[in-house]
Amino acid sequence: MSANFTLDALDKFILNALQTNARTSYAELARAQNVSAATIHVRIEKLRQAGVITGTHVHVDARKLGYQVCCFIGINLARAGDYPRTLARLEALPEVVEAHYTTGQYSIFIKVLVQSIEQLQDLLINKIQSIDEIQATETLISLQQPILRNAPVV
Amino acid sequence: MSANFTLDALDKFILNALQTNARTSYAELARAQNVSAATIHVRIEKLRQAGVITGTHVHVDARKLGYQVCCFIGINLARAGDYPRTLARLEALPEVVEAHYTTGQYSIFIKVLVQSIEQLQDLLINKIQSIDEIQATETLISLQQPILRNAPVV
Amino acid sequence: MSANFTLDALDKFILNALQTNARTSYAELARAQNVSAATIHVRIEKLRQAGVITGTHVHVDARKLGYQVCCFIGINLARAGDYPRTLARLEALPEVVEAHYTTGQYSIFIKVLVQSIEQLQDLLINKIQSIDEIQATETLISLQQPILRNAPVV
Amino acid sequence: MSANFTLDALDKFILNALQTNARTSYAELARAQNVSAATIHVRIEKLRQAGVITGTHVHVDARKLGYQVCCFIGINLARAGDYPRTLARLEALPEVVEAHYTTGQYSIFIKVLVQSIEQLQDLLINKIQSIDEIQATETLISLQQPILRNAPVV
Amino acid sequence: MSANFTLDALDKFILNALQTNARTSYAELARAQNVSAATIHVRIEKLRQAGVITGTHVHVDARKLGYQVCCFIGINLARAGDYPRTLARLEALPEVVEAHYTTGQYSIFIKVLVQSIEQLQDLLINKIQSIDEIQATETLISLQQPILRNAPVV
Amino acid sequence: MSANFTLDALDKFILNALQTNARTSYAELARAQNVSAATIHVRIEKLRQAGVITGTHVHVDARKLGYQVCCFIGINLARAGDYPRTLARLEALPEVVEAHYTTGQYSIFIKVLVQSIEQLQDLLINKIQSIDEIQATETLISLQQPILRNAPVV
Amino acid sequence: MSANFTLDALDKFILNALQTNARTSYAELARAQNVSAATIHVRIEKLRQAGVITGTHVHVDARKLGYQVCCFIGINLARAGDYPRTLARLEALPEVVEAHYTTGQYSIFIKVLVQSIEQLQDLLINKIQSIDEIQATETLISLQQPILRNAPVV
Amino acid sequence: MSANFTLDALDKFILNALQTNARTSYAELARAQNVSAATIHVRIEKLRQAGVITGTHVHVDARKLGYQVCCFIGINLARAGDYPRTLARLEALPEVVEAHYTTGQYSIFIKVLVQSIEQLQDLLINKIQSIDEIQATETLISLQQPILRNAPVV
Repeated sequence: MSANFTLDALDKFILNALQTNARTSYAELARAQNVSAATIHVRIEKLRQAGVITGTHVHVDARKLGYQVCCFIGINLARAGDYPRTLARLEALPEVVEAHYTTGQYSIFIKVLVQSIEQLQDLLINKIQSIDEIQATETLISLQQPILRNAPVV
Repeated sequence: MSANFTLDALDKFILNALQTNARTSYAELARAQNVSAATIHVRIEKLRQAGVITGTHVHVDARKLGYQVCCFIGINLARAGDYPRTLARLEALPEVVEAHYTTGQYSIFIKVLVQSIEQLQDLLINKIQSIDEIQATETLISLQQPILRNAPVV
Repeated sequence: MSANFTLDALDKFILNALQTNARTSYAELARAQNVSAATIHVRIEKLRQAGVITGTHVHVDARKLGYQVCCFIGINLARAGDYPRTLARLEALPEVVEAHYTTGQYSIFIKVLVQSIEQLQDLLINKIQSIDEIQATETLISLQQPILRNAPVV
Repeated sequence: MSANFTLDALDKFILNALQTNARTSYAELARAQNVSAATIHVRIEKLRQAGVITGTHVHVDARKLGYQVCCFIGINLARAGDYPRTLARLEALPEVVEAHYTTGQYSIFIKVLVQSIEQLQDLLINKIQSIDEIQATETLISLQQPILRNAPVV
Repeated sequence: MSANFTLDALDKFILNALQTNARTSYAELARAQNVSAATIHVRIEKLRQAGVITGTHVHVDARKLGYQVCCFIGINLARAGDYPRTLARLEALPEVVEAHYTTGQYSIFIKVLVQSIEQLQDLLINKIQSIDEIQATETLISLQQPILRNAPVV
Repeated sequence: MSANFTLDALDKFILNALQTNARTSYAELARAQNVSAATIHVRIEKLRQAGVITGTHVHVDARKLGYQVCCFIGINLARAGDYPRTLARLEALPEVVEAHYTTGQYSIFIKVLVQSIEQLQDLLINKIQSIDEIQATETLISLQQPILRNAPVV
Repeated sequence: MSANFTLDALDKFILNALQTNARTSYAELARAQNVSAATIHVRIEKLRQAGVITGTHVHVDARKLGYQVCCFIGINLARAGDYPRTLARLEALPEVVEAHYTTGQYSIFIKVLVQSIEQLQDLLINKIQSIDEIQATETLISLQQPILRNAPVV
Repeated sequence: MSANFTLDALDKFILNALQTNARTSYAELARAQNVSAATIHVRIEKLRQAGVITGTHVHVDARKLGYQVCCFIGINLARAGDYPRTLARLEALPEVVEAHYTTGQYSIFIKVLVQSIEQLQDLLINKIQSIDEIQATETLISLQQPILRNAPVV
């Protein structure tokens, strides 16, 4: 498969640290690993150029913004071949934060963030089910999300 | 429900910008909105203190690290009441990056990142299915993830 | 089966009227059917004594009281024979407003009214799934209830 | 979500009492709460005007009228987008006493009251399945309904 | 429901006896119940005229005739409304010995007797699935039929 | 497989005729086939001795006896190995007129005749689900049985 | 059914030996059974002519060739009658190494060998789901294949 | 993943030829590719030593040996963790020719070859379902197997 980037222990330490908190200073990282801050800087640049680090983002608490309801929606298409067209329609809906093409009982599996049950109803009836290619949807509402974290760099 | 934080247009602009790229400078944000950099600084501090911004993270490309396989696993418990105990066991597995307690046909619904089909097999047989409380699992492998983004701040 | 009460056209008119609005006056009912108010009175008393009319109730708008979430929960038992014991436990939960013993894929099928997704989570995890006899639950959240009415008296 | 009406203890007492028996006299309610009948009258009017109390109805025993069979019917549509048109057709059938737009495996979920298995057969074959937009139906017959009550006002 | 024919103990005795063996002589039945053979004759005639006894048939052992395979086939239609047309097509297939219109997950549920797996394949591919209105079929093969008897007359 | 009995055209004619009406006289059968009544007699005796004809029965119209409800019940066992013990328990219930051990989603598949929805409820709750080995049941009620006939002798 | 070829003990020994290793010499087989090599030769020729032995093949380790992923795909057709046309389309895909027409929930059930998750995605989206007659697919990925052997000749 | 063996065009030609017919002579292979027979010999030896060719087998026509029935059985375990113990039990059954540990709705998925419906019944009731760890099985009988071939070497 794709030629993976090979990481040494220092790279992995840096990635795990910045995944947790991107505002950790070079000095702090350097001290923890007993190297110079310049070394840290060089490594991070290399990780960015290799596409291992793809960006830096603030994390916004969706619930604080009123996104009360997170759910997964399994979508079945009228024809299995309608996948590309349907995907384009889903992409235009900002509430759809993930879309997967999966094995198993659904054609497309999406993750959705909405502010309320009312907004979910509107999204489903007026925006998702009005997509002609969609035959049926099945919604799993997340009542609690006890785990959310990054894959560890090992 | 919880008293949501009320955001004005400037707050929303800042959040959307920093969600996309946390390294955007205060100066750049200020220029785009015709305010002073100090204003931007004050606002960001306020958003952090209110818990709207909960952290800054680098995004690491999981595929570059060899995480070839993303999948969702629906878990059914032998007894519905075994939920808390099972969750604790799942939390100890770093491959489990999300866990949801959902309505619908599964007791617990998790998202997993592994490096290969072989590692998935090991995770399922030796780590997840060896949890006594789990009666059955159903795995949906993500073959393609065409959409991954944050919920917009609106 | 049970010997049904035989109704004439006047009985049916009265029942349909009072089902819609129990505060309709005897005079009004009498005028509409061209009979005396005393006749109406006699008939209503007879319908009460026969157990056709079982009570008069005000209807309270659940959403106005904060009951945002109506859902149906299909319950599967660890053993089909655990039905009576489980029912007694469900009866003790005021959120459960209907319970049915149904043909089909569920052992018990209940209707639940809760104030929020959070309360639903609490009900499911701490009150319903802690019932030992319950093996699994499947929740269908009602996103919209466009029809709610009485069976017509025909 | 919607601004809920705030109720004090007296309002809640009144609502629970009238939900159980709308014919309870103002005097009786007043005595139980140690207030004047006029106070009770004022409160009830306020609850009506606020839309908390939406009506008063006699309850008719469906079985006494020969409604032997209560069932739930899950409806799947040929196209998810056919929901509004199908709903209009279902509304025209008086046997359909509830209709829900639900998450989960069905597009529409209805509750039906009929007088016999024969009438259910007629309803399904000649009235529901003749609706062109409906692809399939699944019927859960209620064999017993051990719980039926209002949500408590708390 | 339909006015059922009322049977006394003698009628029930006769029906159970003739259901088991229609060749039992009137004399034998009469002796066992301590009545005259003429009484037996009169009763049987009355049961025939009332349509309680609808015929007399020899039972042929299907396996002796080479009917090795008994199976149930659940049929789902492309449109729920295609039921009458599909039924007419199924009626033309002599292998279909029972057809039911059922609640639950199938539109039509049939019982089929065929001589071999090869004949089942031919029946399914060339005769049942070539019916345009049928979207899908699910076949349950009976591997063993340990119980087959009449409903007792009680 | 088992050595099947070989039938000639006359045997088949006789079997089809007697399956339809066991009271057809030998003379009538003989005339139709241009053979002597004695030949018919000999053949029928041979078919009885070979076990092709296993009995003669009157057919009793179940609905005339008040058996309003015919249904199929799919049974899932707690352990697949509990099949023989469960079967013995089912055999003791006269309402169970067929039992099949089938491929597909159920462990045991039975056909049941009961007089009413109430009797079905009693059968399921008190007689079938009280069998400890049964984990779950799924009931398909037959709303209409448009086809019921014997397999033709061909 | 088809007249099966009758095998004696020597035939069965030879078949089991050559199924395991077709390169076993006639001399070795002869010694083990105390017969002449010529006898072995004659028997093998007879088994070939009778079509019992249909060929000799080297077994290639699919994983060594990079076929990392083995999976089963259940296919549901838009119309049950589209089976022959769909089969022809599947036959043109070399990744499809087995196809079965099965009882149960799928129309067609195929076994597929691909080199990677990426190739599976390409096969499903661009080659299988682009077949117009296919309504839906469900993929079961084999994570481990602990048993693979021939049926013993007994 | 595992370091795959790299094949050139000649290797691939040889593998495809010998997969189809292992008795193709070196001379014939050599002629077709314009190389010497010695080269063919060297290559085949290399492919054997590398484990690409793992053996040579005669193919026996299962139907000629009376194996009329091929089926797939999905197995669900009482506890997901019972997988290794159950596998050992299945391995002792020669009728089980393949076993897979799969994603999706079954714990274990096996392929079975039996001589008749009767033998399948015996296998399921007496050998597979008597394994204590197995909770349920679902059998898909292959009615036709229109495709069976090796993965091409490309």
